[in-house]
Amino acid sequence: MRAISLAVATALLLTPALPATAQEVDRTQIARIVDEGTRDSEVMRIAQYLTDVIGPRLTNSPGMRQAEDWTAAKFREWGLSNVHKEGFEFGRGWSAQSWNARMVSPRIDQLTVMPITWTPGTNGTVRGPVVRVSLSSASDFERWKGKLAGKIVLLDEAEPAEAPTSVPFRRWTDEDFAKYSEYSLPTYSNGGGSGAWMTLGQQRDAFLKEEGVLATVSMSGRDGDIVHGSGYSFLLENAPQVPGFEMSAEDYRRLARLLEIGATPEIELESSVTFDDSNTTAYNVIADIPGTDRNAGYVMAGAHLDSWAAGDGAADNAAGSAMVMEAARIIKSLNIRTRRTIRFALWNGEEQGLLGSMAYVEKHIASRPVDPDASGIARYMGWNRAWPITPGPDHGKLAAYFNIDNGSGKIRGIYAQGNPAVMPIFEEWLKPFASLGATQVAMRSTGGTDHVFFDAVGIPAFQFIQDPLDYGSRLHHTNLDTFDHLQADDMRQGAIILAAFLIQAANADEPLPRMPIPAKPLDSSGYYPWAGQTEGN
Amino acid sequence: MRAISLAVATALLLTPALPATAQEVDRTQIARIVDEGTRDSEVMRIAQYLTDVIGPRLTNSPGMRQAEDWTAAKFREWGLSNVHKEGFEFGRGWSAQSWNARMVSPRIDQLTVMPITWTPGTNGTVRGPVVRVSLSSASDFERWKGKLAGKIVLLDEAEPAEAPTSVPFRRWTDEDFAKYSEYSLPTYSNGGGSGAWMTLGQQRDAFLKEEGVLATVSMSGRDGDIVHGSGYSFLLENAPQVPGFEMSAEDYRRLARLLEIGATPEIELESSVTFDDSNTTAYNVIADIPGTDRNAGYVMAGAHLDSWAAGDGAADNAAGSAMVMEAARIIKSLNIRTRRTIRFALWNGEEQGLLGSMAYVEKHIASRPVDPDASGIARYMGWNRAWPITPGPDHGKLAAYFNIDNGSGKIRGIYAQGNPAVMPIFEEWLKPFASLGATQVAMRSTGGTDHVFFDAVGIPAFQFIQDPLDYGSRLHHTNLDTFDHLQADDMRQGAIILAAFLIQAANADEPLPRMPIPAKPLDSSGYYPWAGQTEGN
Repeated sequence: MRAISLAVATALLLTPALPATAQEVDRTQIARIVDEGTRDSEVMRIAQYLTDVIGPRLTNSPGMRQAEDWTAAKFREWGLSNVHKEGFEFGRGWSAQSWNARMVSPRIDQLTVMPITWTPGTNGTVRGPVVRVSLSSASDFERWKGKLAGKIVLLDEAEPAEAPTSVPFRRWTDEDFAKYSEYSLPTYSNGGGSGAWMTLGQQRDAFLKEEGVLATVSMSGRDGDIVHGSGYSFLLENAPQVPGFEMSAEDYRRLARLLEIGATPEIELESSVTFDDSNTTAYNVIADIPGTDRNAGYVMAGAHLDSWAAGDGAADNAAGSAMVMEAARIIKSLNIRTRRTIRFALWNGEEQGLLGSMAYVEKHIASRPVDPDASGIARYMGWNRAWPITPGPDHGKLAAYFNIDNGSGKIRGIYAQGNPAVMPIFEEWLKPFASLGATQVAMRSTGGTDHVFFDAVGIPAFQFIQDPLDYGSRLHHTNLDTFDHLQADDMRQGAIILAAFLIQAANADEPLPRMPIPAKPLDSSGYYPWAGQTEGN
Repeated sequence: MRAISLAVATALLLTPALPATAQEVDRTQIARIVDEGTRDSEVMRIAQYLTDVIGPRLTNSPGMRQAEDWTAAKFREWGLSNVHKEGFEFGRGWSAQSWNARMVSPRIDQLTVMPITWTPGTNGTVRGPVVRVSLSSASDFERWKGKLAGKIVLLDEAEPAEAPTSVPFRRWTDEDFAKYSEYSLPTYSNGGGSGAWMTLGQQRDAFLKEEGVLATVSMSGRDGDIVHGSGYSFLLENAPQVPGFEMSAEDYRRLARLLEIGATPEIELESSVTFDDSNTTAYNVIADIPGTDRNAGYVMAGAHLDSWAAGDGAADNAAGSAMVMEAARIIKSLNIRTRRTIRFALWNGEEQGLLGSMAYVEKHIASRPVDPDASGIARYMGWNRAWPITPGPDHGKLAAYFNIDNGSGKIRGIYAQGNPAVMPIFEEWLKPFASLGATQVAMRSTGGTDHVFFDAVGIPAFQFIQDPLDYGSRLHHTNLDTFDHLQADDMRQGAIILAAFLIQAANADEPLPRMPIPAKPLDSSGYYPWAGQTEGN
């Protein structure tokens, strides 16, 4: 006990001067930001337009095209500069016009389904018996050959229901934050991602088409008649040939149970979908508030504007997009000028692999050797594990990147992404917002969204800690992700704090301290560092 | 502390003799019941047939007709006696073959709806603009006259979403049970129910038909794309003329928000429904295990077999029906003979006002003066508040009634329904089941299901305390009420305890002590004593 007290006393005597970046938090300016961001907040009106009026914004769908144009127009309306769309090669546009499903034998029952993105429509109602087929290897194909014509194939094991014994909607507590202060040192691999890209899925699709299967049905991973419909076959060369549906867990399990007791259920399925191959380019939306010093570089805020097709993409990520746009509106409408330019980015193709932010990084920040033999987006599949990293034109100019993509929960702090040098700076920047609930600077990294490719090439790139609410429990990628479940006060708070962070980073004497450019891949699973140390994202 | 110790010592010395009814809990017999009810349990197979194969069992629907026959056949298969269906006048049969809804402007969106029971179908797809109309009085009708032709009417205020901050699935704790030991003395009214029976609803329907409205849409009272579809117009003379739908809260609120910002949404609705007026009689299913003493009367267990049309009526009340049937199977298959006959009842029309059990009580137990001018079931609308009560042929014979209708949660005890004389008896009967979690005898009353009309005429009639699970939070009357969410071990336990209680009550030297025949109506709201003192039912 005594030893600790001495250590504390010593620490107090030796408190170092704050780093230059942390200086000069202008509280008068923050007061103006809070005033503008509460009294005249536009954040919910933006979110409502993106969700209620435009709706789901699957990359290259008509909804996303509309969102690209609408957000760019908003930035222009507010007087931002250099507003433009920056394209990258993506793939097909897809949207669903209608869908429906019924069990017709042994009894009639309306079923909850949705089509899986980028699968073809049924071309009218198809009707057939369901059969449970496990196709996890090529030898499974042999077993089912000649037995599936005219059938509807249930692809998944019917996992049993789970009792919902936790609170769906919650905010972080001090107990949670105690865990946040824990940090595990990163581990490294010798890298090299696999070149396989949904090979089994493509083989399975071709087999099922050949066999004359009417449609496939997957089971929702959540209970409560919640569906997602997420599929990844957005490349023309991967185009699935068999209509695919996701079915609610309750309805799927009923079919599986009826099969088990010898009743052979027959179901009807219908989906009407539209493909658009006229333009396979997807567009990020970029807008600037120019700095006063042309040589000082820029700082950046980003959020992905695209969504999945289920629900209206509200928490994921109209919420983050609206907060980024509202931060831009606040700064611009207060006519706040900063040394560095502040750039706002609304990313595209995030849900398919952070593709829009990857394209931006590859073009402007740092390039990595891509596969010259692959076409389109497939060239970049191993991008995050390819060496060497070659700094690009903006590598030295981009002083900080801040991302928002954790739903509509209020900002409670920020992940330092393994960079201890930024922690005291962020602690200073957060101080004015303690009474709004934002206090935590966590050493740990978080992954899974658009800051990771900036981080992966040595840019100080961060994502905020937000209250989890019901994002993970029921909204993430589901039909329940609608405007209803957004928390307005939380989003006003988030936009205000983001605006303040951008101004601090853009005005600091020194840019944020950087980690070295990574020389080895992190030992995280998959192509991308999805797996951070964070819970609840 | 000393005073308490003395009191305990005194209590030990003065422990009174148990009432005759509580004597002779035969633990060897209970061991056999536990063995039969666990090793060879049929309770989940029964529940699965009722839910997966038969599905929803709205009174007088084809599903309920099938369930009446199937359960009667099961009772016969197990060797029960006097198996028969006992009819009472009800109303129309109704079932839905298909339904669907889409927003088509300002964008396309698949909507979650279901038709409201006993409303007509749309006769193909109807399409029109939605309009929010408040019609809570006749003067509202004037305001909207001439303005609604070709429109789809949103009937409800779009109440905002609520954050789901409580655990959906839970079991009772000691803390809950501490509340259960509280009892408020009953209060009485001078009675006289209103003669109104959905008058405003009928006037509204006639007005909307006259105005040429395409359909009406109500808002679900729960979030999470959960729908119920419950309507009460089952009498031919009340037949609604305008198709009615319930829409998920999320989809309904989106329409309301779009209206608020001046976008006039257009939607398509389709429902195909079938009426059956060929037989307006509904049937309770009755089966007996005869007693050894023909003059000793009978005891009874009951559960309602009918359900609403949403989901498969699993927790409400295939669960209770299966536990009652399993108790019958256990007793019969062990060839246990009791002094009194044990009667099993699967009620019909419970969801429309406990109509099946009321018909049984009126016919066999005690009659009350009904309205001679009304026709059909409407004659009985004020039944529970009509005096005098005239005991019928079975009033002295029915020694006890036990009901199960609180979902699939395990039995934790029993409500004494305000009768202190039965409490020590039930405490004795529960003792062998303490290690299975059943320990509580609560003085308080519970209402809302088929024991109340027995109780209301002075029969010792009870319902068990069951763990709430997710019954109230998401299953009750919803599309999520499927077999998936039933708890198998809980239901095995429930059937075993019910079987044991029936045997105790049927063998006791004295019938259960009775309360006096009520001489005045209880001051509870509505026609029926729905409002017990219980939480969570």
